[in-house]
Amino acid sequence: MLGFAGPVARLAEELGKLPGIGPKTAQRLAFYLLKADPAVVQNLARVLLETREAIRYCSRCCNFTDTDPCSLCRDPQRDHTILCVVEEPRDVAALEKAGSFRGLYHVLHGTISPLEGRGPEDLTVRALLARLEKGEVREVILATGADVEGDATALYLARLIKPLGLKVTRLAHGLPVGADLEYADGLTLSRALEGRQEV
Amino acid sequence: MLGFAGPVARLAEELGKLPGIGPKTAQRLAFYLLKADPAVVQNLARVLLETREAIRYCSRCCNFTDTDPCSLCRDPQRDHTILCVVEEPRDVAALEKAGSFRGLYHVLHGTISPLEGRGPEDLTVRALLARLEKGEVREVILATGADVEGDATALYLARLIKPLGLKVTRLAHGLPVGADLEYADGLTLSRALEGRQEV
Repeated sequence: MLGFAGPVARLAEELGKLPGIGPKTAQRLAFYLLKADPAVVQNLARVLLETREAIRYCSRCCNFTDTDPCSLCRDPQRDHTILCVVEEPRDVAALEKAGSFRGLYHVLHGTISPLEGRGPEDLTVRALLARLEKGEVREVILATGADVEGDATALYLARLIKPLGLKVTRLAHGLPVGADLEYADGLTLSRALEGRQEV
Repeated sequence: MLGFAGPVARLAEELGKLPGIGPKTAQRLAFYLLKADPAVVQNLARVLLETREAIRYCSRCCNFTDTDPCSLCRDPQRDHTILCVVEEPRDVAALEKAGSFRGLYHVLHGTISPLEGRGPEDLTVRALLARLEKGEVREVILATGADVEGDATALYLARLIKPLGLKVTRLAHGLPVGADLEYADGLTLSRALEGRQEV
């Protein structure tokens, strides 16, 4: 008995399942939403459903998109000879925000992690190799995270890609070791790009 | 151009409208939701709509409820002669969590604030007076916040209620001055209840 009705508790419980939303925040949001104009809540629910429905993976870079190929892959202004390989769509967002990279991306959707049972076949490695075999790309930047799993994944990919005769680089250790790409500021990301080293 | 597709930006924008959710958190949540199982998103949307649809105000205490009267007003174990007047439904939740109050509540849904153009007619003051005129209640605890608006609202209500011959009390200043009820810990709330003073 917490002094509020079932719907409040039910909504708070559902919101509390979201990452980074604790019970207190979930309760605040539930109170807000239950007091809000019904149209606000209907709109939020509609956007949730519509965006989840509309989201696709680009058949080239495997990033989130609503058109295929995605707007980045279709952009003729970008350098199609240089490919930046990242773990997650949010990493693309972080690099685009930094603004110093004008090539294309490839999203792995994870890292190789034997401890958690994730091998290369769980990532988009096959799609990456298929892209490289087309011969347009001359350099691959392995921009996985600066942690153990990111390093292992980069090493694995380097061994696969180098025999293709491509230049393979890794982001410079301007990144704080152990940090996610997502939390780096734009300047740090730009420095890391400038100082990239051949593997 | 932030490197992610329209749906991500659209969902992040919608989530960013929620209180306490900044752009960074909104983006994290959007990425999470767009990668999540569609069933998870559908469930969240359904709970949002269903709870917003189900929520009502109790015709007695004006708190959130899905049944009328609410479970607190219907509870024969509670002391129906003592009424605790609070600003918001979340204050009921906070007091119930503290667990030392066994009477009933009345939710004002705001404070009197001439600066923001909110007068007594925007609150549930009329419903409160109608309740008191039934003669069951012997004491009214004015548990509005310990800030200027909460004090002004309590003073206004005390002037209305005292002529009815009821005992009118205010929560003791165990509450940190200027703080919301919501953020007080259970012990502080219990002390404030114990030390309440007649107005």
